[in-house]
Order: sequence, then structure tokens, then C-alpha cells
Amino acid sequence: MVQQQALDRAFAALADETRRAILTRLGEGPATITELATPSGMTLTGIRKHVDVLEAAGLVTTEKVGRVRQVQLGTERLDDAMAWISYYQRLWERRLDGLQVYFTLRKGTES
Amino acid sequence: MVQQQALDRAFAALADETRRAILTRLGEGPATITELATPSGMTLTGIRKHVDVLEAAGLVTTEKVGRVRQVQLGTERLDDAMAWISYYQRLWERRLDGLQVYFTLRKGTES
Repeated sequence: MVQQQALDRAFAALADETRRAILTRLGEGPATITELATPSGMTLTGIRKHVDVLEAAGLVTTEKVGRVRQVQLGTERLDDAMAWISYYQRLWERRLDGLQVYFTLRKGTES
Repeated sequence: MVQQQALDRAFAALADETRRAILTRLGEGPATITELATPSGMTLTGIRKHVDVLEAAGLVTTEKVGRVRQVQLGTERLDDAMAWISYYQRLWERRLDGLQVYFTLRKGTES
């Protein structure tokens, strides 16, 4: 059962280009805050805030390794987001199928 | 090419339970603002604001039919959102495959 609040947080977290770029980067493997900040040109504080949003949404997990905070992907919530979008796409396709049947039937009666 | 701002708007629009419920309802067919408001118990103004957010994100289109505003699904942006999530899931699966190869190789050297 999908929790609505968890979905709210997941979609809100995805609604930002920098956060999506962080997730893409983490797809290659875990990274430190510094490593995440380097390509973006953002401050460590800025990246840390984005990572906090992603962590609250369950999209990443973080771990202190010595004095460094290591960030890695978590995906449970993204699976839920994907499931929701898939469900919605199916609804939409069903509607298109219905329209197609309607126009085919109409064409049949007109010819 | 996916527009980042369009993705921002699509995900932000999806980050709300009422708006997701509106999209699900529209999966059954077009509806007026009043029809959308009825099951939710929300005011017409409240629903109209949610529809505006969905329309700005390209997830629905609206049309004036006489004095009534008809709302229906549009899906371009949702396809982009789906494509983005699919891409990310593939990155994640590739990472899992990598881990599995690593552990299988490790097990091989240990036995």
C-alpha cells in the first residue's frame, strides 16, 4: 500500500534539477558531499540541504564514515513513484483505446 | 530532449494527493470542475487552483464548453517524468548487478 505522504515527498524531491543530477551521479556509486558538490559548482551547504531533502524522501541514505558523510541511493520510494505513474499511464492508454474503438465504430457506420 | 523546467513542474504537480486523485479521475474521462470537486469535498476555487497547477505542468488541458470548464488529461510531461524515473531505475539496477558480480567473485575466491 503506497503511503500518500511518502509519494508527496518523493515527487517533491524529484522536482528539482540539482537533486535529479545528484541521483544520477549516485547511480554510478556512493559519493561524499564534497564529490557531489564538485561538478555542480554549488556550496557544500547547498548540496547538504538537497541531500537532506532526498534523504527525508527515502531516495538516498547517508552514513558517516569517519569525518565524511557518504551518500548512496535508496529506491523504495522511487519504486512507488514509478508504480503510480505506470498506473496513471495505463488509465490514459485505456482512454485512448476507448476513443479508438469509438472512431472505428463511427467510421464503420459512415461508410 | 527533456526540458528540465518542464520536469520540475511535472514532478511538483504530482507531489500532491488531491492533484493525483484528479488525474486518476480524469483517467476515466473528461470532467468539469464541479464534477472534480464533488468526491473530494473541496471548494470549486480549491479544485480550480489544483487544475491550474496541473495545466501549467502540461498534465491536463482545459476547454471552455459554454459556461463550463471541461478538464481532460494531457500526457506529454508525464511521459517525460516516466522516462526520467525509468532511466534512474536502470542506473540503480546496474549498480545492484555490479554489487552482485562483486559478491559472487568474492565468494568464488573464499571457497
